[in-house]
Amino acid sequence: MSKLVIVGTVAFDAIETPFGKTDKILGGAATFIGLAAAQFNVNSSIVSIVGGDFPPKYLDLLSNKGIDISGIEIVSNGKTFFWSGKYHNDMNTRDTLITELNVLENFKPVVPENYKDSEVVMLGNLHPLTQISVLDQMAKKPKLAILDTMNFWMNNALDDLLEVIKRIDVITINDEEARQLTGEYSLVVAARKIHELGPKYVVIKKGEHGALLFHDDNVFFAPALPLEEVFDPTGAGDTFAGGFSGFLAKTGDFSFENMKKAIIYGSTLASFCVEKFGTERMDNLTSDEIHKRLHQFKQLTQFEIELS
Amino acid sequence: MSKLVIVGTVAFDAIETPFGKTDKILGGAATFIGLAAAQFNVNSSIVSIVGGDFPPKYLDLLSNKGIDISGIEIVSNGKTFFWSGKYHNDMNTRDTLITELNVLENFKPVVPENYKDSEVVMLGNLHPLTQISVLDQMAKKPKLAILDTMNFWMNNALDDLLEVIKRIDVITINDEEARQLTGEYSLVVAARKIHELGPKYVVIKKGEHGALLFHDDNVFFAPALPLEEVFDPTGAGDTFAGGFSGFLAKTGDFSFENMKKAIIYGSTLASFCVEKFGTERMDNLTSDEIHKRLHQFKQLTQFEIELS
Repeated sequence: MSKLVIVGTVAFDAIETPFGKTDKILGGAATFIGLAAAQFNVNSSIVSIVGGDFPPKYLDLLSNKGIDISGIEIVSNGKTFFWSGKYHNDMNTRDTLITELNVLENFKPVVPENYKDSEVVMLGNLHPLTQISVLDQMAKKPKLAILDTMNFWMNNALDDLLEVIKRIDVITINDEEARQLTGEYSLVVAARKIHELGPKYVVIKKGEHGALLFHDDNVFFAPALPLEEVFDPTGAGDTFAGGFSGFLAKTGDFSFENMKKAIIYGSTLASFCVEKFGTERMDNLTSDEIHKRLHQFKQLTQFEIELS
Repeated sequence: MSKLVIVGTVAFDAIETPFGKTDKILGGAATFIGLAAAQFNVNSSIVSIVGGDFPPKYLDLLSNKGIDISGIEIVSNGKTFFWSGKYHNDMNTRDTLITELNVLENFKPVVPENYKDSEVVMLGNLHPLTQISVLDQMAKKPKLAILDTMNFWMNNALDDLLEVIKRIDVITINDEEARQLTGEYSLVVAARKIHELGPKYVVIKKGEHGALLFHDDNVFFAPALPLEEVFDPTGAGDTFAGGFSGFLAKTGDFSFENMKKAIIYGSTLASFCVEKFGTERMDNLTSDEIHKRLHQFKQLTQFEIELS
């Protein structure tokens, strides 16, 4: 089993959807990634920062899942990063109501000593320079570095973003962002252009329309599970990344064939995440439930056509 | 092998896309359905109407594919139905520039005598009363009646549409239309409500995002093949319906398992249709090309996760 370093936000979210609203609850990219990866019982460590207002019970929650939290800096006189958003009726678009960076403004990630030899690094959405700093701290080049990012950094730190993209093996990015980054509408062409920027593997996330994995001339597609209702999409992309990286860390097999499985695990876990507010559904998710849903994924996608 | 009756337009299309434009070329729902179904060497008959301006070479093209054209009425002093449209840069939306109904205005479909006992009926997009008239002419209830329709009839002939929906086994409809018909955003809930209107099988087409097949609590999903460029989407939905109905007519097996295969064949054929203007790509498509692309579909979607 490989070790997994996760860098990303640990945060407060306040969410409003057509189904209800929350006060400040546990959120953040690294939180969702960590909870998803924890399903594979990997040795993982979250590198992040919170304020003195961050409830110890949230840290306990992560710790109880077997996640190393020694890399989460607590700034006792600071406030935790806070994001608030409101989803529209279609649940596919949202407005950000509040973004308070707080302690994140001066975040200098420190990778715990015993995780500097991790084989897998999952760089959650953050400033590209913060992501680079994590890569720089690794004792040796990790076997697999995975990057998640978003359009905000394309608009505000493109050169830094291109620098980190050059250094990673897998990028996960959504369809609109892939188009923005490359200026290409066709996702096939966009993926090829992103390959040329560095990553051998390109994962394009299409939300409710699933995800595509590109590697050389190979393409794999995993749908999102069709759900009766999407209750709260917050964290779905991070949960996908957590399932993907967690499965790869557990298996230590970074082949295209195994990445296909990792995509399916990522999609499966994301399908749970959206069923309740925030991390609620992930907190007490059982392996039996995951197993059943993987079965549903098979039913959804597998067919028998004999080809000679 | 079952016989297949296809009702729908045989028409002139003039198309403009970011890649170019055409003069009046061969188009129409029944044309695309027929050409796709012809790949399965089924006994099929197109029931339609054209004007005296319709070139005999187009009729020959259909006839040479083995399609019975005795049900295509030729109104020598009339003009053929004409549609002209312009696609936007994203190729997902289009403006209709011209719609000239011409002979379609007085179309009374007549099913050829030797096709009245057909096991499979494919009702292409037309006024619901025209579709009902074809069902009424069948000597006995067909084993499988498939309906394609669109929002125009929801807006202008909803009662008639609900009447034909009540009488068919499979409906193919796009995602926005499924939402409009049911008032439900979730496609899972929308499909259930459409089931309640009559059809045992509901196919929801999502264009570049693939297609879903619903039957009771079973769901199957087929992606659209990711393509470098979509050259002209005209006829893709009809080609999908043609591949679907053609495969089912050929096999005579109307089980859910076999419909999954039919969906894959439909998606495969549609992926060719969009590569060139109009019917151009379908005219000389070989079974070897189809075979190769089915293999690509397998590569795209199949994965190995052992579940006990």
